[in-house]
Amino acid sequence: MITGEFDLIHRIRDLVNRRQPAPTGTIGIGDDCAVYRIAEGRYGLFSTDMSIEGTHFDLSYCSLRDAGYRSMASNISDIYAMNGRPLLAFVSAGIPGRISEDDVIDLYDGMIDCAEKHGVFIAGGDTVLSDKLVLSISIYGETAAPVMRSGAAPGDYIYVTGSTGGSMLGLELLQSGAGDQVYAECCAKHLRPEPFEGVDKLTAEYSPTAMIDISDGLTADLCRICEESGCGYELYARSIPVPGEVERFCAAHSRDALMYALGSGEEYQLLFTSKLKIENGNAFLIGKIIPDGKFIIINNNRVPAENAGFDHFSSRLKKQAD
Amino acid sequence: MITGEFDLIHRIRDLVNRRQPAPTGTIGIGDDCAVYRIAEGRYGLFSTDMSIEGTHFDLSYCSLRDAGYRSMASNISDIYAMNGRPLLAFVSAGIPGRISEDDVIDLYDGMIDCAEKHGVFIAGGDTVLSDKLVLSISIYGETAAPVMRSGAAPGDYIYVTGSTGGSMLGLELLQSGAGDQVYAECCAKHLRPEPFEGVDKLTAEYSPTAMIDISDGLTADLCRICEESGCGYELYARSIPVPGEVERFCAAHSRDALMYALGSGEEYQLLFTSKLKIENGNAFLIGKIIPDGKFIIINNNRVPAENAGFDHFSSRLKKQAD
Repeated sequence: MITGEFDLIHRIRDLVNRRQPAPTGTIGIGDDCAVYRIAEGRYGLFSTDMSIEGTHFDLSYCSLRDAGYRSMASNISDIYAMNGRPLLAFVSAGIPGRISEDDVIDLYDGMIDCAEKHGVFIAGGDTVLSDKLVLSISIYGETAAPVMRSGAAPGDYIYVTGSTGGSMLGLELLQSGAGDQVYAECCAKHLRPEPFEGVDKLTAEYSPTAMIDISDGLTADLCRICEESGCGYELYARSIPVPGEVERFCAAHSRDALMYALGSGEEYQLLFTSKLKIENGNAFLIGKIIPDGKFIIINNNRVPAENAGFDHFSSRLKKQAD
Repeated sequence: MITGEFDLIHRIRDLVNRRQPAPTGTIGIGDDCAVYRIAEGRYGLFSTDMSIEGTHFDLSYCSLRDAGYRSMASNISDIYAMNGRPLLAFVSAGIPGRISEDDVIDLYDGMIDCAEKHGVFIAGGDTVLSDKLVLSISIYGETAAPVMRSGAAPGDYIYVTGSTGGSMLGLELLQSGAGDQVYAECCAKHLRPEPFEGVDKLTAEYSPTAMIDISDGLTADLCRICEESGCGYELYARSIPVPGEVERFCAAHSRDALMYALGSGEEYQLLFTSKLKIENGNAFLIGKIIPDGKFIIINNNRVPAENAGFDHFSSRLKKQAD
């Protein structure tokens, strides 16, 4: 029985690495993108993501156009997370017989809505019949200097490009049927998440040592940087930006805004480390890389952090078992 | 209601072309691969394929290792069909909770079995939970000179690199439970199809004007060349090579071997056109491109050919309706 996505991914990664030594200039499984050296100072970036109806989007509150948008956004964000420029996308879709051709066109319109905003061209794909809607998008981009997850070192500062938490609140409200009346921004954030634009300006300003996009949650994704870099982190709770709607909601319902900020996935802000200390730049300084351990400083207390990420397999199996 | 894969693909293609003009040097939807100009005389090739349990493979007679092999073979073949060298693969898998981690490893072992035979490195991917097993593989290759589907012209000769028909017979026998005792080669051909190796030698010998791999059936794929090239074809039935097992089976069961040869998909032989007439080369001369119409010469009679291809949507819906 599949027990956890992370364990399985590690086994697959070990298998591939054992049976297939990576060709020169190629960096494989274990980052936002695979990196392929095209020429001196020119690298191809590849990423692929699969979204399945019911697990990654729910058509009871998410339109097909939004489903398309969300899936494309997730892939484009992976390219930005490597300091890349996204160029081409390839879309495989498993389509249920019950949905109409017009619905399928809506789905593709949503993907194109997002793709064209970011200069991405849908250059190919495949369509097959499926019981549930399945979208698998592969994306290709290029960069002159890839930023990996593995480059962080103790003493580096941790930055995030914007507030997090809105997508999780939006999801909760949409799932509960509370809709998008009062917390419209959070609902929109969940339905049409926007990849972070301007990574080239960011890298020029900060010279990041490691970078990732927030797709599974701030702490879960920070853990990946730490795992690949062999280090730990210390986050300053009061420095982590939270959207106004999340603060209002949490105040009104006695909830913890920090939980949203740390656990919310599909945010697509960039999370990165840098040797430079920049207090008032284009990103928020939220912590520091340390040799070992994971801590959050809350009201001057240094408390051990728990991984608040979203493990698709475990949570989905839990749902099935419920 | 989805009525036919080809219609839907045309609508998607029209939508993409209308909303997104292809960037310079990029050739999009409508060939085995998308082509991206990296530099003078160097092109990136991209292809993606989705396989779903029940539609593309049946785990009642196909092992997970074979399912992995088959899916990888289909993608690698797309690169060869463009005169390319396959380099990197990216695997997204939707995995049912009911199958064990060891089964998943078997699936990946099958993909690697095929990948390493053809010099392909699995460089990334995604795994998610799914009700049915879904495999989406994207592949990247390169070529100095892509051969498109669109270059055929009246007067060109039509060639195929080997016999076809075995995969369809293998499928029938496996589905009926007749197994792989008497017709072992055909069953193996279906379970572990082999992409055609040596395309560089082939293009040096024949200078193909158009090329495709046989994934949906000889006539169905030839129709694609004709559609993209704006022409017709004439096939010589007696010149089309058929595997010995298919001939034996057809003789014993009063079946038509030509039907298998023309209709069998997932063969992964290359089908191409050339201005050169080579009678005893490394491929079989099976016909000629004509300005218009589709004909098969059988016993000196010129009969109109029907598209014997396999339309996933229609056939699957038919199955559901049955």
